[in-house]
Amino acid sequence: METITPNWLKKRADLSPERTALIFNDQSWTFGEVFTLATKIAGKIVGLLPGKSSRVAILMNNTPEAVWVIYGLQQLGIETVFLNSKLTASELEFQIIDSETELIIYDRSLKDKANELSVMLTEILIVSVTELEGRPTFEIAIREEYRLDDVFSIMYTSGTTGKPKGVLQTFGNHWWSAAGSVLNIGLQENDSWLCAVPIFHISGLSIFMRSIIYGIPVILVEKFDERAVNRLLSSGKVTIMSAVTAMINRMLTEQGNLPYHPAFRCLLAGGGPVPKPLLEVCKERQIPVFQTYGMTETSSQIATLSPEDSLRKLGSAGKPLFPSQLKIMVEQEEAKPMQEGEIFVKGPNVTGGYLNRDETNADSFRDGWFSTGDLGFKDEEGFVYILDRRSDLIISGGENIYPAEIEEILLSHDEVADAGVTGISDKKWGHVPYGFVVAGKPINEEEILAFCRKSLAAYKVPKRIIQVNELPRNGANKLMRRLLSRLIENEK
Amino acid sequence: METITPNWLKKRADLSPERTALIFNDQSWTFGEVFTLATKIAGKIVGLLPGKSSRVAILMNNTPEAVWVIYGLQQLGIETVFLNSKLTASELEFQIIDSETELIIYDRSLKDKANELSVMLTEILIVSVTELEGRPTFEIAIREEYRLDDVFSIMYTSGTTGKPKGVLQTFGNHWWSAAGSVLNIGLQENDSWLCAVPIFHISGLSIFMRSIIYGIPVILVEKFDERAVNRLLSSGKVTIMSAVTAMINRMLTEQGNLPYHPAFRCLLAGGGPVPKPLLEVCKERQIPVFQTYGMTETSSQIATLSPEDSLRKLGSAGKPLFPSQLKIMVEQEEAKPMQEGEIFVKGPNVTGGYLNRDETNADSFRDGWFSTGDLGFKDEEGFVYILDRRSDLIISGGENIYPAEIEEILLSHDEVADAGVTGISDKKWGHVPYGFVVAGKPINEEEILAFCRKSLAAYKVPKRIIQVNELPRNGANKLMRRLLSRLIENEK
Repeated sequence: METITPNWLKKRADLSPERTALIFNDQSWTFGEVFTLATKIAGKIVGLLPGKSSRVAILMNNTPEAVWVIYGLQQLGIETVFLNSKLTASELEFQIIDSETELIIYDRSLKDKANELSVMLTEILIVSVTELEGRPTFEIAIREEYRLDDVFSIMYTSGTTGKPKGVLQTFGNHWWSAAGSVLNIGLQENDSWLCAVPIFHISGLSIFMRSIIYGIPVILVEKFDERAVNRLLSSGKVTIMSAVTAMINRMLTEQGNLPYHPAFRCLLAGGGPVPKPLLEVCKERQIPVFQTYGMTETSSQIATLSPEDSLRKLGSAGKPLFPSQLKIMVEQEEAKPMQEGEIFVKGPNVTGGYLNRDETNADSFRDGWFSTGDLGFKDEEGFVYILDRRSDLIISGGENIYPAEIEEILLSHDEVADAGVTGISDKKWGHVPYGFVVAGKPINEEEILAFCRKSLAAYKVPKRIIQVNELPRNGANKLMRRLLSRLIENEK
Repeated sequence: METITPNWLKKRADLSPERTALIFNDQSWTFGEVFTLATKIAGKIVGLLPGKSSRVAILMNNTPEAVWVIYGLQQLGIETVFLNSKLTASELEFQIIDSETELIIYDRSLKDKANELSVMLTEILIVSVTELEGRPTFEIAIREEYRLDDVFSIMYTSGTTGKPKGVLQTFGNHWWSAAGSVLNIGLQENDSWLCAVPIFHISGLSIFMRSIIYGIPVILVEKFDERAVNRLLSSGKVTIMSAVTAMINRMLTEQGNLPYHPAFRCLLAGGGPVPKPLLEVCKERQIPVFQTYGMTETSSQIATLSPEDSLRKLGSAGKPLFPSQLKIMVEQEEAKPMQEGEIFVKGPNVTGGYLNRDETNADSFRDGWFSTGDLGFKDEEGFVYILDRRSDLIISGGENIYPAEIEEILLSHDEVADAGVTGISDKKWGHVPYGFVVAGKPINEEEILAFCRKSLAAYKVPKRIIQVNELPRNGANKLMRRLLSRLIENEK
């Protein structure tokens, strides 16, 4: 039977109109106010929509306006493409065309990128929030109910090979993700969630979905800044925060030995295991770290390790949350404890598939289980350990970087005969990409880096380009990216 | 898309094996232990089941054994009929036959009733828990997953006319009921729920569903006793309790001016509005009363009033919970604020219908909304007020009593020409049924009461039988039960 719930924000505004929904710098808004603002902007958006079932993309950073637009689109039940503002115009172009987006809404800080896009995509309507706000407000019929099978958000993610794919996230996926989290960490009257991760990633968007479902405020910051975040965590205003390891490192260094406020009860850490020395510091300072495993396809965390287990189960991502399942497969069989294999996940928070990718979708699901491509194992007690992210994924400061994408660019350079990319550990970012190239004559590193910058978002541009005689390949001539780092061991 | 989750108890035992799941008198069990006991009893039950899809009924009071059996049946995914142990054997007989039950499990305290049933129902297997425990344990394949559309529990409820109907409660109904409650009252690490209401009612069963979903202990008591309950609420061991108004009254009287432990944070009050003097006592003693509206068909509460609104919105049942909707209909239109009408509800916690009652089901649902038959209105702020329970339902000490059922018995008495039953307010029980009869000659009250006792559960037997000249009927000759109480106004 199809599951239907009331419109979440409308319901929340009815149940808790006076409760704080959003805090940004010195301003704050109640759920009642947020609902009014979202409805108002929705009434402006409809005037621009070519059709009722149009798809809209947002190209926005962490601002209150982005929140009104996202909730506004939700009032209309419009499928929303979340564009990563760090991508280059040509990277974005692919996603916009692929998703058949008919309208793009951007914010002032991304004006240059929007201008570039408007030259490339002359048929697509591109408006700034400021323009939008100046437009007439139409009377609209907002969605009274949400069908949980309906798609709300689309976020692009890459894979081993090929172009990025749009992950379809339904209202149900978001609901169950929020439910799994609340059953894990509880819900207290004073709860508030700090969002210092991008709203265009699932880590950020999921905070806003939880906010309206739980009825708790989001404290939004424009950009992660360790000093500002530390001040918030020391103030007692924040009880929960989502972060990646690289952020935690910078926060702890800046904070020194000062304790955080005791109300701060949960630091959700994604993007790879937190190293032991960092965990020990957290334990000493009584910072409750919940290490998680998740991806765009699972609509945020799918497994979490409790703070009490963090040192006993060092490096583990814990157990799958209440509504979800996780198994390790070796060939067609489920692995034994401690046996390495591919990670499969299942649960109502897991995407039903990628947009217009029938073939990939057929490959990605087996009997209702989603094949993550990640490698890992479970220990005797069922705790999950992630060994390698799929397709040698590099997580750099919370952003996913797919080596294949960078290799493709390197290979398109005239002088490069062969190329391989891998992540090298980095104090500030966790990992950064390094490029390894084979060429007929000595290369000019700076020239190749400049070439990369033309097509790649800044965070994807390799930190170094290293020329080698040949790349490590296995018998089937497959590039062994994990062996690349050995080529610079002497150098480091 | 069909929603599938892991088996709840198994998942809970995996996530929190060492946490306390159940406390009964001086004993306690962890989720790990409860899972083991449930699996074990499931392995004994399968040996008695005629078929894989058999339906099993339980005739049990509040005991740990009942908990193992309920969870055990859930491991097997077996539809379970929850029999009200207060009913007479002939009342039960109807439900057992109607539900096509193939096996009944009873506990020692209900031996006499079980014996009566075994004479009446010679084809149905009736075993005690003790017998069951002595039987061999079979290897079983427990359900790894629950399909939320599958029925788990069936509870009988009556209506205006006709025989009781089996309400089908799916796993999804229970899930969403638990989700709606947690989003309303939160979830804290020290939470525990006192169950002093019968497990065979949705008020009791829903506590056990929440327990495994939330990972919190149930403190189970065999029977409501104000002194024992007060001791528990003063101990700090209980944070949440479900009660009906009649229970609260008795608790407060016994407790006197002594405060409850501050950890006690939520008293969920069902079965009609709490009277103002009682609310004022609760306010004075800082007892947080959450008044609720719900029924078997909504799998427990569907609307709840927060303590902060309880005096401002006296007599209201609050607003519908996050996943649910409630509207007031007058003829085919939605009522205006303050306008009285019939209450309709919708939400994933609402039953899909009654067992084998196609006609009633067709009548009970309109565009996905369930017609409760109850009367009420919403105020300008959307707070719901219940005016009359459907079919003049009498709620007596938390038990539902349907006048039609008693009238049918009264009318079957040789001397009774016409009969009407209504609820008269009662200090101890909230309301008690009174019978009004028309007869050709003076009746013998005691003889008619004895006649009722033969076919009706004790709580349904009228407190008084009053002979009148005629019953109040409207133009369409419909009995106006609400006017019956006027016939004794002088007498009271």
